[in-house]
Amino acid sequence: MPAQGKVSLPVIKRLPKYYRYISEMKQKGVTKVSSSELARIMGTTASQVRQDFNCFGGFGQQGIGYEISRLHHEIGTLLFREDSLNTILIGTGRLGTAISSYLNNDARGYHLLAAFDVKEDVIGKELCGMTIQHIDKLREFCKKNTPDVAVLCIPKASAKELAPTLVELGIKGFWNFSHYDLAVEYPNTIVENVHLGDSLMSLSYRVNNED
Amino acid sequence: MPAQGKVSLPVIKRLPKYYRYISEMKQKGVTKVSSSELARIMGTTASQVRQDFNCFGGFGQQGIGYEISRLHHEIGTLLFREDSLNTILIGTGRLGTAISSYLNNDARGYHLLAAFDVKEDVIGKELCGMTIQHIDKLREFCKKNTPDVAVLCIPKASAKELAPTLVELGIKGFWNFSHYDLAVEYPNTIVENVHLGDSLMSLSYRVNNED
Repeated sequence: MPAQGKVSLPVIKRLPKYYRYISEMKQKGVTKVSSSELARIMGTTASQVRQDFNCFGGFGQQGIGYEISRLHHEIGTLLFREDSLNTILIGTGRLGTAISSYLNNDARGYHLLAAFDVKEDVIGKELCGMTIQHIDKLREFCKKNTPDVAVLCIPKASAKELAPTLVELGIKGFWNFSHYDLAVEYPNTIVENVHLGDSLMSLSYRVNNED
Repeated sequence: MPAQGKVSLPVIKRLPKYYRYISEMKQKGVTKVSSSELARIMGTTASQVRQDFNCFGGFGQQGIGYEISRLHHEIGTLLFREDSLNTILIGTGRLGTAISSYLNNDARGYHLLAAFDVKEDVIGKELCGMTIQHIDKLREFCKKNTPDVAVLCIPKASAKELAPTLVELGIKGFWNFSHYDLAVEYPNTIVENVHLGDSLMSLSYRVNNED
């Protein structure tokens, strides 16, 4: 079922969590779930669940509960398409290495095509079945293979320097581990930020300023 | 300056970003900044910046701009205390290894004391200067060393199983990479979730359903 108009970002951000819980219920053999039950395990309200689902046409009738198999299928169709998204990794340091392994082994909907770096001593080495290429090869590679998504595991300054090239080469989505605020500079790109440093600072603030 | 009453989570989540930008300005030798200039580079509004800062007493006078050195000092004091937070890592797989290295090399305010796992073949091995211990040693270790923070790089089921023990042993804050919704089950704990899988699903939804 297609989305009903433009869906807001907070709703999109909640979809994966719904999908995870519904997948678990499906595995356990549960066949129906009410919005209030779903709200309880997700830590939200039944009204929020119904509002969220209404953005996508409702996923079934209220009152008699949602069918798990239908929910699972419809949310899955929203999140993933049949073809995986062609993906490139920029930066093959500790984090880039861990992330490429995560993409290859634990993620769905992405196909990691190539990895790029600037450090001469890693160029030509293997990473998750790919040969690490010099960033100088990026333009040629993208023109030939038209990747959709770039994973940025590089410092802020490098991300800022590389961003216009990646946007120009047709990258639509960024999984951004750098601290460069891509979405502010390029409002038309799709950016998912994973800011590990910010997450740690929020945590230390909260632990240090506990009630 | 202490926080003025209970500060809301969205404000706390924005503090690290302010701190990053203000640190950069300080490094560049900038001495003053207006709320509208700060808003512009952060991709928000001047009114939002002023409201956020007012939660902590305002950080100086409106109209004449904020002093960078004061902002940097005051936000830094909110985020970090003099003593680092004693931290333990649970799970030393690919992600746990990358994260421990990140904590040791790139993070501020945390001191990684020990790493635990259940896999016999990794017990006794070195990780970032620590000897990986069996999870059976967790209770004894925590009673002796009273860590504040646990980093969970383990599967959902393991996190669920271990959570009551960690809470009982006095862990105050969790950096949670597992898909276990700790904060729902233990509302009094402080949890920062990094859900890589959810982040990837949101990204693929947005790339696949582009306008």
